[in-house]
Amino acid sequence: MAQQHLDPTDPTAGVSPKLSTALGQGGAPNGDALASYLRARATEFLRALRLHRETGAAATAEETVDAARALRRSARRISGSLHTFRPLLDSDWSEEMRPELAWLSGTLGLEHAYEARLERLLLALHRLSGSTAFPAQTVAPTSPGASVRGVPGTAVPERGNLTVGAAKAGALLERQLTLARTRAHSTALQALGSSRFHAVADKVAVLASEVPLTPAAATTDLRPAAAAAEERLTAAIAGLPLVTAGHPYNAEALIHGLSPDLSPHPQDGPWHQVRLLLRLHRYAREVLLGPGAPVDVRLLAAGQALNRHRDASEAAAAAAQAARTPRIAPATAYALGVLHADQRHEVEAARFAFQQSWQKQVVSAP
Amino acid sequence: MAQQHLDPTDPTAGVSPKLSTALGQGGAPNGDALASYLRARATEFLRALRLHRETGAAATAEETVDAARALRRSARRISGSLHTFRPLLDSDWSEEMRPELAWLSGTLGLEHAYEARLERLLLALHRLSGSTAFPAQTVAPTSPGASVRGVPGTAVPERGNLTVGAAKAGALLERQLTLARTRAHSTALQALGSSRFHAVADKVAVLASEVPLTPAAATTDLRPAAAAAEERLTAAIAGLPLVTAGHPYNAEALIHGLSPDLSPHPQDGPWHQVRLLLRLHRYAREVLLGPGAPVDVRLLAAGQALNRHRDASEAAAAAAQAARTPRIAPATAYALGVLHADQRHEVEAARFAFQQSWQKQVVSAP
Repeated sequence: MAQQHLDPTDPTAGVSPKLSTALGQGGAPNGDALASYLRARATEFLRALRLHRETGAAATAEETVDAARALRRSARRISGSLHTFRPLLDSDWSEEMRPELAWLSGTLGLEHAYEARLERLLLALHRLSGSTAFPAQTVAPTSPGASVRGVPGTAVPERGNLTVGAAKAGALLERQLTLARTRAHSTALQALGSSRFHAVADKVAVLASEVPLTPAAATTDLRPAAAAAEERLTAAIAGLPLVTAGHPYNAEALIHGLSPDLSPHPQDGPWHQVRLLLRLHRYAREVLLGPGAPVDVRLLAAGQALNRHRDASEAAAAAAQAARTPRIAPATAYALGVLHADQRHEVEAARFAFQQSWQKQVVSAP
Repeated sequence: MAQQHLDPTDPTAGVSPKLSTALGQGGAPNGDALASYLRARATEFLRALRLHRETGAAATAEETVDAARALRRSARRISGSLHTFRPLLDSDWSEEMRPELAWLSGTLGLEHAYEARLERLLLALHRLSGSTAFPAQTVAPTSPGASVRGVPGTAVPERGNLTVGAAKAGALLERQLTLARTRAHSTALQALGSSRFHAVADKVAVLASEVPLTPAAATTDLRPAAAAAEERLTAAIAGLPLVTAGHPYNAEALIHGLSPDLSPHPQDGPWHQVRLLLRLHRYAREVLLGPGAPVDVRLLAAGQALNRHRDASEAAAAAAQAARTPRIAPATAYALGVLHADQRHEVEAARFAFQQSWQKQVVSAP
């Protein structure tokens, strides 16, 4: 299979043609564009926060989830822009703000992560059982903190399609991940009521009208900082084993599936890092191109592949972790082993998907 | 991914260009070519049998394995040709001969199959443990009936690289498959000393000088019968889910990995059937083209992919079977679950490899 090698010393590698065109047509974007972007994200943050508070106890699960997702979305973009365009911003303010935003989006994201992980694992168990009668609505998000599967009456007939091992494995994962999710929900509620959160919210409220730019920012070209973010991304991608990933069924992802080493798959680390760098590059692109800029679908596909990689990696670790529960039945352990390997193959599939989408992107560049 | 659809009604589909060229140049092959082919295979059979007997107790494991493989190889080809070119041969003789040859190659093949299965599973366990220090010679064939791993002193330090679960799973599989192999060895020895075997050997001895052709065989064109064998192959391939198989990571092979249905993977059946039909087509091609004909490397690759499919399918079933052993530890069951899923992914990989090689073959046809 032909392989495009990314040259880590070439800062234009992977730049989409749309980006170059857009930048060529307008003037060089400067601190004003950054300030406008940050104000818009801060306004979004405050709107999501108001929605979250107003809905309160009366909110449907979906509304609460949407509000929390919007909060995280804005927080990530503000934090990412502060990092990429550091030289244009008041450094004390910026350095104080970033860890607080990271804490916030991390805390708010955990509950959803556990919920999605359980959903992914239960769907996989049903797929592995050859069950076609798995109604999607029973794994849809229910009210936070409650049991994910909601009505026990609907869960029982489904279990009938599973072997004893698969059913027990599902019940064990449900117990463990629902407990983790409930704890994450409490932690998120505590965080939203804390003085630490109010301090962040106050700072974002100020940011919505007043961005602390440096005196030189108004005349500083944003492109070198954005290009540096892209260089960090392409350098990290150049370090990935993309030749291997481009060969289907390379069996690399499961290679430590039974390793005595307890740290879960160090081979995943560089891919997780690329996921974060790709996000930073995407946000920097948003700042430069402004609102209404076309979405780069290939960048989106690459990002989705890396999200899938992360989700499958964490689901595989959760299955392995559940298998270490004392006194489980051998049939349960067997099902968890199959499930772990299945998710590690999802990891491999996601790497292949990333390789394919990234290669396309490079090939299409002028 | 583009997909070549095989037309089951087109008897030339999948015919390699080399075959058409070879047939176009010479005269139409008839019963003489078949008789010559059968005599040559019968002679090979007798030579292998002599080797097997002469070496006896003094033989190295390798010599015995080689002799048994040569016996099976000739028996399969005689049996396959009897089937494909049925109308040219004395039907009573042919119908009596075929099941006896099938019994023989089946009985002689079992010991090797168990040995190869154990080797495949132990290698997979080491790969899954991230162990790079797995010396290949410790899984090389040893004397039949003896422990496959041979010297316990060399096995113990290797086990140190495995987790407790992987080591216990390996020991369990070794115990079960070595027992099965020892039994198969005894059965094969009994078979080789039986009057049933002597009757087959006598018939093959006659065949080496005198092929019971029908009176019309000398002027009968072999090509229609060979084309019919190829038609049966292409029709069976047309029934395979090749579009799915051509999409890497389609997750189809593991879909019943935890199914309560105990019959191991009915989805594998059509692939096993194609493997047998491909072999018959290959033998018919040998008859038509005569000795020294070039090997069709793509046909070879397709056959190897189907062998790998069969081996992985049976290894996965052995891992699942071992997991049903009463009173095993959860860690052992977990390792067997990972191993089962790994081998089912090998099944999927083999289907992908077959699709790739078969597609190439069709595309290159004129």
